[in-house]
Amino acid sequence: MRVFIAGIDGYLGWPLAQHLAARGHETAGADALLRRAWVAEMGADSAVPVATIGERLAAYREHFGASLPFTEVNLRDHDALGRALAAFAPDAVVHLAECPSAPYSMMDHRHAEFVQSNNVSGTLSLLFAMRDHCPEAHLVKLGSMGEYGTPDVDIPEGFFEVEFRGRRDRLPFPRQAGSWYHWSKVFDSENVAFACRMWGLRATDVMQGVVYGTWCPGDLRLNSRLDFDEAFGTAVHRFCCQAVIGHPITPYGSGAQRRGVLSLADALQCLTLALENPPGPGEYRVFNQLRDVRSLAELAELVQAAACSLGIEARVVPVANPRAETEGHHYRPDSNELPKLGFRPSAPMDEELRRLISDLLPHAGRIAAHADRLPPTVRWRARTARAHTMPKTPDRGREPS
Amino acid sequence: MRVFIAGIDGYLGWPLAQHLAARGHETAGADALLRRAWVAEMGADSAVPVATIGERLAAYREHFGASLPFTEVNLRDHDALGRALAAFAPDAVVHLAECPSAPYSMMDHRHAEFVQSNNVSGTLSLLFAMRDHCPEAHLVKLGSMGEYGTPDVDIPEGFFEVEFRGRRDRLPFPRQAGSWYHWSKVFDSENVAFACRMWGLRATDVMQGVVYGTWCPGDLRLNSRLDFDEAFGTAVHRFCCQAVIGHPITPYGSGAQRRGVLSLADALQCLTLALENPPGPGEYRVFNQLRDVRSLAELAELVQAAACSLGIEARVVPVANPRAETEGHHYRPDSNELPKLGFRPSAPMDEELRRLISDLLPHAGRIAAHADRLPPTVRWRARTARAHTMPKTPDRGREPS
Repeated sequence: MRVFIAGIDGYLGWPLAQHLAARGHETAGADALLRRAWVAEMGADSAVPVATIGERLAAYREHFGASLPFTEVNLRDHDALGRALAAFAPDAVVHLAECPSAPYSMMDHRHAEFVQSNNVSGTLSLLFAMRDHCPEAHLVKLGSMGEYGTPDVDIPEGFFEVEFRGRRDRLPFPRQAGSWYHWSKVFDSENVAFACRMWGLRATDVMQGVVYGTWCPGDLRLNSRLDFDEAFGTAVHRFCCQAVIGHPITPYGSGAQRRGVLSLADALQCLTLALENPPGPGEYRVFNQLRDVRSLAELAELVQAAACSLGIEARVVPVANPRAETEGHHYRPDSNELPKLGFRPSAPMDEELRRLISDLLPHAGRIAAHADRLPPTVRWRARTARAHTMPKTPDRGREPS
Repeated sequence: MRVFIAGIDGYLGWPLAQHLAARGHETAGADALLRRAWVAEMGADSAVPVATIGERLAAYREHFGASLPFTEVNLRDHDALGRALAAFAPDAVVHLAECPSAPYSMMDHRHAEFVQSNNVSGTLSLLFAMRDHCPEAHLVKLGSMGEYGTPDVDIPEGFFEVEFRGRRDRLPFPRQAGSWYHWSKVFDSENVAFACRMWGLRATDVMQGVVYGTWCPGDLRLNSRLDFDEAFGTAVHRFCCQAVIGHPITPYGSGAQRRGVLSLADALQCLTLALENPPGPGEYRVFNQLRDVRSLAELAELVQAAACSLGIEARVVPVANPRAETEGHHYRPDSNELPKLGFRPSAPMDEELRRLISDLLPHAGRIAAHADRLPPTVRWRARTARAHTMPKTPDRGREPS
């Protein structure tokens, strides 16, 4: 299968390219390299050293015996994106090319506006480019479990049968996101569903839980990044990095907030199952992609225990919750579609966490050098006015000439 | 009350300013004058002659004895918008400053992207500016009944109580819009609701039906525009313009599509009721703003009958539906909140339609001169590639420096 990965330079994109290549698929990719700039803007760096995109592509060629066609392009550059898709003629497009951070979007107006317009306009550009250049291709779009928020009922996979005043219908399950970023993911989901309805595109929308895990397959150039700053580091990664440098593990608030989580290996397995089992033309399907549901307090304890088993003593010290969120809430998301396709979780979480921490230990110095990036500073309800200067974004596709 | 009207140069904004002034409210306004440019881009013009914004403001001063502080600004110019709000210190902000056309958004990628980014970024900019400069002010935002689509159940006002697998919750009613434009309105509704939840802003989100009617109070400079091109002319206005120039009235498809409709006078009454009865801090409420539910075929017949009563013979000749939409569908939207506040419909529809057609008759020549703009050319499912050059949009607020 020919798979085009938008966002191939990111945390998921780069391992996915390798995972697909190992299964015999041909891959191409696009990236604007913005994740590197955003993390630099946060004053941080990947805990695991990563190579330049040029070095990565050279390593890919050496290890997989095939070159990977790569285009440095922002999805909003509609014409360039169209040329890249037309040239590769993909069977599937994996869309990982969004700004993925809730705290980043909550910093101030500029960041909120950037995250929403970047994600919505990029996805819209991709949808039109697929319609025009590869309308039969299967779009696998990365969504987020955070799109649903925390309703007081179970969370189905995208749609639910509902009775209202004696009539029944199958309706989209209402979304109640909790950050400007998560709303941008909702908007993208809605646009993708509309494109399927309108033009007969086929898409899998992946509501993904929190992914954790390193990807260090031996050649540094094949490593995936692992961030720990407050914006681009997810809870599990931040907890592990804190443990590795002897800092307290700091869940937000009571830690009763529950999240769907899965390992990077499981995420790659799931995305591959979606790719290898495409929907029919015009079909828009939603998969909730997670393995376990855990509270932040439980995640902190699991990291603490994994660290302990490696001889690292770590304390858990909750900090005030910078987010505006319900901490104790009902949370029972369905996740039946991927198991039906054959998803079988790989290693259990404690084993994955030990591997994660072991992979990080040699890089403790890199984490320690940016330890001041660990405490949260962005507060959901505050009128923050940070001195950040955002990286310049190519924007050629946006304004009509 | 001090009311700031964003989009004051538009079809609703200009009459609303006058209606509020007549009730003793102080008004200020902002507009980027884009509606004029968009209609010109469609090769059309308002059926009713309209004055320049400068002439309008002069007439306002003469008729209402007060000057109207006006800022020519795109809402995306965040700093300039903030200065205008800070200077006026409004008690309420009415947000009518969006690109309001489904067909315009369905023309091609550029128009889809423009409509979504213009509306979403403009609204986001306004929300942040209100948070920073008038957090106590009441936002009345214009949404659309089209946000709901046509579910096979009744349509409540924004939220519904639902039971799912034995648990109950009050959830946002799922949106199923039918154009890129209508999705942008959904996104804005979701962002407004989130801002209320996050910052304690107060907002009324008005899901408005199709509004029809002229506003010609005697001084040409006070006239409101009335468009009839395929993008900015709504069904009723287009039918009336067709009748006035002796063209057949052309509902799309079977005409069984049902819509909520209300007259301009009723729309002004409803918006004023919302303004004069604000919600509490942090409250986000949704009003379905409509008077009658009518099928397009019924609307065509009503226009035909009104024309006939004025001695104009008009035929109804359906044309192929350019939109991708369900034509025969359940449609029973609630509209209880505004009547609870005292909404009492003014003249019945046949009377309003006769007035509308009478007001248009002196301008039949203006309509006839652009009669080629009446037939639809934008097709929802086609890959249109129109030769339109979009007007340049000021975009100073968008890209961080």
